[in-house]
Amino acid sequence: MTLPAAPHQPIEFWFEFGSNYSYLAAMRIAALAGAAGVTVLWRPFLLAPIFRELGWNNSPFVLQGAKGRYMWRDMERQTAKYGLPWRRPSAFPRAAVLPMRVAALGMDEPWIGDFCRRVMQQNWVRDREIDDPAAVAEALAGLVSDPQAVLDAAVAPNNKLRLRTNTESASARGIFGAPTFFVGNEMFWGNDRLEDAIALAAAPP
Amino acid sequence: MTLPAAPHQPIEFWFEFGSNYSYLAAMRIAALAGAAGVTVLWRPFLLAPIFRELGWNNSPFVLQGAKGRYMWRDMERQTAKYGLPWRRPSAFPRAAVLPMRVAALGMDEPWIGDFCRRVMQQNWVRDREIDDPAAVAEALAGLVSDPQAVLDAAVAPNNKLRLRTNTESASARGIFGAPTFFVGNEMFWGNDRLEDAIALAAAPP
Repeated sequence: MTLPAAPHQPIEFWFEFGSNYSYLAAMRIAALAGAAGVTVLWRPFLLAPIFRELGWNNSPFVLQGAKGRYMWRDMERQTAKYGLPWRRPSAFPRAAVLPMRVAALGMDEPWIGDFCRRVMQQNWVRDREIDDPAAVAEALAGLVSDPQAVLDAAVAPNNKLRLRTNTESASARGIFGAPTFFVGNEMFWGNDRLEDAIALAAAPP
Repeated sequence: MTLPAAPHQPIEFWFEFGSNYSYLAAMRIAALAGAAGVTVLWRPFLLAPIFRELGWNNSPFVLQGAKGRYMWRDMERQTAKYGLPWRRPSAFPRAAVLPMRVAALGMDEPWIGDFCRRVMQQNWVRDREIDDPAAVAEALAGLVSDPQAVLDAAVAPNNKLRLRTNTESASARGIFGAPTFFVGNEMFWGNDRLEDAIALAAAPP
């Protein structure tokens, strides 16, 4: 007699397309979670309102020069370490409301991972403006049957509200930056904690 | 004929006794560096003046409640992961000027590593006030022949200046938090980057 395998917990991946460390996590999470048998729940939220609550009117990487200069060098090293393509964007942080709304619309759809990786690469590899319907439509191409219908649904009031609700949930749960992972009530901040979060999700209860 | 081994670069370890993530790095660095054949240069500096330059009159873990609450949980998990003892101190951030001055005095002495690990454990395991001559003397016991003479030298003007000079150097080199590692001109911020820094130090030139 064999016992059924213990069910793994899902990992919630809270992210922003304008967040550079979210790029690292977005490109890594599917392979790591898949190898561990863990399901990924993609959870887009807007960072700007979270930063405003902390008293910042911009990214700390812009407000704090030394930290910002360090971050760009760190990104060069981290992307090299992970074997990820990388080009420093000419704009930072890049506005991303439209693709974030599409991500909120599709966050539980089978195309969410591919869509998010494409938008991330538009921003962090191709230096493209991502808050642009043409860019978002291109990221949706081949993933959904009617990209324009998805774009229209993304900007409908009920979906705008969905992204706002995600952002309010992020704040209520104690999120103060991106990426953030949840496994149950355990919160992990930063791409550096991705492996720890997946290990917890895959651990026997 | 065998060629001589390529000389490794040293790793500079910039730290503060009041910094919780410096505790993790201080307890880990000697073993990791030793295994890689890398020399550690202990470089104490005061965080408070660095934070003041960033506009903060206290640790961001105090000023930003959500980040602070997360940090304490992260420390529980990280110390468990590394097998390090841990008790959350009843005071944070703890004043540490006297032991920091002793560390500045002895930063290139053979006892620096043992002394720093003892002070770190006083703060992060035994919840002891470390800015206290009795605690510092205890940390020096058995490491130097005359702890009182070291304490006296630590508070002499030329050594107070040494710690101040370290702090100014930290600021000038772009340090914005602790721990920070340097390998040559490459800067690495945070205990999470310790392994990367050591790998660079041990890499062939």
